[in-house]
Amino acid sequence: MTFRASAGFTSNWEHFGFTVADGVATVTFSRPEKLNALTFDVYADLRDLLAELPHRGDARVLVITGQGRGFCSGGDVEEIIGELRKMPAAQLLEFTRMTGAVVKAMRECQLPIIASVNGIAAGAGSVIALASDFRLLAEKAAFAFLFTKVGLAGADMGSAYLLPRLIGLGRATELLMLGDKVDSATAERIGLATKVTTDLPGETAALAARLADGPALAYSTTKVLLTRELDMDLGSSIELEAITQALLMKSDDHGEFYAAWAAGRSPRWTGR
Amino acid sequence: MTFRASAGFTSNWEHFGFTVADGVATVTFSRPEKLNALTFDVYADLRDLLAELPHRGDARVLVITGQGRGFCSGGDVEEIIGELRKMPAAQLLEFTRMTGAVVKAMRECQLPIIASVNGIAAGAGSVIALASDFRLLAEKAAFAFLFTKVGLAGADMGSAYLLPRLIGLGRATELLMLGDKVDSATAERIGLATKVTTDLPGETAALAARLADGPALAYSTTKVLLTRELDMDLGSSIELEAITQALLMKSDDHGEFYAAWAAGRSPRWTGR
Amino acid sequence: MTFRASAGFTSNWEHFGFTVADGVATVTFSRPEKLNALTFDVYADLRDLLAELPHRGDARVLVITGQGRGFCSGGDVEEIIGELRKMPAAQLLEFTRMTGAVVKAMRECQLPIIASVNGIAAGAGSVIALASDFRLLAEKAAFAFLFTKVGLAGADMGSAYLLPRLIGLGRATELLMLGDKVDSATAERIGLATKVTTDLPGETAALAARLADGPALAYSTTKVLLTRELDMDLGSSIELEAITQALLMKSDDHGEFYAAWAAGRSPRWTGR
Repeated sequence: MTFRASAGFTSNWEHFGFTVADGVATVTFSRPEKLNALTFDVYADLRDLLAELPHRGDARVLVITGQGRGFCSGGDVEEIIGELRKMPAAQLLEFTRMTGAVVKAMRECQLPIIASVNGIAAGAGSVIALASDFRLLAEKAAFAFLFTKVGLAGADMGSAYLLPRLIGLGRATELLMLGDKVDSATAERIGLATKVTTDLPGETAALAARLADGPALAYSTTKVLLTRELDMDLGSSIELEAITQALLMKSDDHGEFYAAWAAGRSPRWTGR
Repeated sequence: MTFRASAGFTSNWEHFGFTVADGVATVTFSRPEKLNALTFDVYADLRDLLAELPHRGDARVLVITGQGRGFCSGGDVEEIIGELRKMPAAQLLEFTRMTGAVVKAMRECQLPIIASVNGIAAGAGSVIALASDFRLLAEKAAFAFLFTKVGLAGADMGSAYLLPRLIGLGRATELLMLGDKVDSATAERIGLATKVTTDLPGETAALAARLADGPALAYSTTKVLLTRELDMDLGSSIELEAITQALLMKSDDHGEFYAAWAAGRSPRWTGR
Repeated sequence: MTFRASAGFTSNWEHFGFTVADGVATVTFSRPEKLNALTFDVYADLRDLLAELPHRGDARVLVITGQGRGFCSGGDVEEIIGELRKMPAAQLLEFTRMTGAVVKAMRECQLPIIASVNGIAAGAGSVIALASDFRLLAEKAAFAFLFTKVGLAGADMGSAYLLPRLIGLGRATELLMLGDKVDSATAERIGLATKVTTDLPGETAALAARLADGPALAYSTTKVLLTRELDMDLGSSIELEAITQALLMKSDDHGEFYAAWAAGRSPRWTGR
């Protein structure tokens, strides 16, 4: 039940690869010759896909990855920065709001999001990985919040909000102010990577399948409350969790857990 | 001076062990055959003890530990989950609010709380350890925020508020969403454990004695401000600290420090 | 353009060393025989310098360091604590507000601040390092948030706000409640130190030069937004970043990046 009425779904996403199979939606950045640099159209499509995705009803987890050597090298210098140079202030704000809307939609999306970081994640690409729930990294993957190196603020698309909440203010200051590359081992050590793996496709598929086949309502409420409680106080957070958990205690999946436990078998989750 | 008038104190806590000696109150979960699984009565007694404890006047630190192999395995599957299956929504909310009230009372309690984690801390047991100020772990101790494995939200009793503020949003997402076991070495590495020790009773006693014998007002204001300033902005926090510290400068203990320093002896703290 | 009209600048800071060269302002605590213990006058001068510094127009980064073996051992026991013992409550509050004002000014200062921690940073000295943006540590440097050891709250000058946001609530509780010494290797491991180095003067000079010679507006907006977004919610933070970045896209430095990139040369930053 996805509560969609007149509005249809986009049938073809032209600016990245998009597939859904077995509950797993996958976005694949597909400009490998440019290390998957972003264009205006990729941003717009990401924003619009994230708005549609929870309503489609066929996906319970989103994987974002890149084709070729890179994950996503951020805004294309020619196709984005070159064009921005010609824009008036109001249009620049339209653009930066669009990029921020992608991150906001990722954090507020009820589906868990896995960034399967196959190579360099730079600029906006690093923030897209940062805004995901899980970051699986190939050994050669790296982050570079390189905004100041192009003369822009290291605070971009919510990075100055998110990064201190993942790795602490001190390390976030260093990464955002200086913009230097962070290799995968360092990313794992400081809590920026969930895991570094020598089998990125295999680990990604396994985690995605686990999330797609598991108790979807339990997962999605966990994600949504993690997002919301970053901005809430202790007392309100505890009340929100009490109300949410009381609802979940009436869910099919919790009942199924108990029935399975009583019968000595594994639960069959439906996500309801 | 504990400002207690008509209300008395509970003389016998029936659902866990409770002792007070030399300023150290100790709660010992005491259903070792069930890895100290919680019952409705344990939750209720914990909530009520936490309300009384600061007024008793005989305790300056609280230790929470478990009897036998486990610390606390969370809500008992039969005695809690089985009963919850039969309850209407309003009663479920009474229950989840009670569990949240335990965590809120722990965080707002002016006494420092040490979780002496002797074995597995699972589900609600892991959140009780999380809500403590210090987490001393035996080597075989482990955490498991296993809520999603029973079909419930990983956000329970404030876990989605507290855990990101201890170990960062990325690691907290992994632990709460997936619910997998975290061994003691990992817990120490990521900042979830204060310390892993081969002599848990000895280290617990030493830390408890240090807190009980030390400058209690200094300790308790430190704890209370840590709790409150998670929900405050920079300017307000600095003002709160300025006012608090000015008060502490008028405390007996600060005067005692200066007198002891001038006389070249150790201070004799009174907690006033 | 620093928007300063009638108000002049202080010509001589009497209570610490102060130099400006090549865009790098340096404060050197200069009571080495006392491990650079603070006096009332050092606090007052720090507060007032931080108010003037951004308007001088000659500095783009501030380095804070200590002369001799120590960085800063905090409030002098005789010259501060001894005097505080004689003060009425209202005057104590004047003092604690002044110390808090130093930290508030450091966090809100648009210039990046490097603490070059050459030795022990204790008490208020540890908070001054904590409030800096970068903490470079000599191997023998150490932190000690020793407030409770003198009978005061571990929450001082914003420490109970800042420290949990750098290293997490669990570790911050341990450090602020107990006040024990943290060596440089531990500080680096837990995210309290940016880096431990065997060549502190060289590394400090290199980082300061990089910040002074780089895109100053990009750096300063990054710092200011990091500070502000600790106290903002996700949606507001993303909007603030969108507006800020649109402004930066109209900056000379961003244009210079693009021109340099097109011409295949290094950018020449002006900070405009």
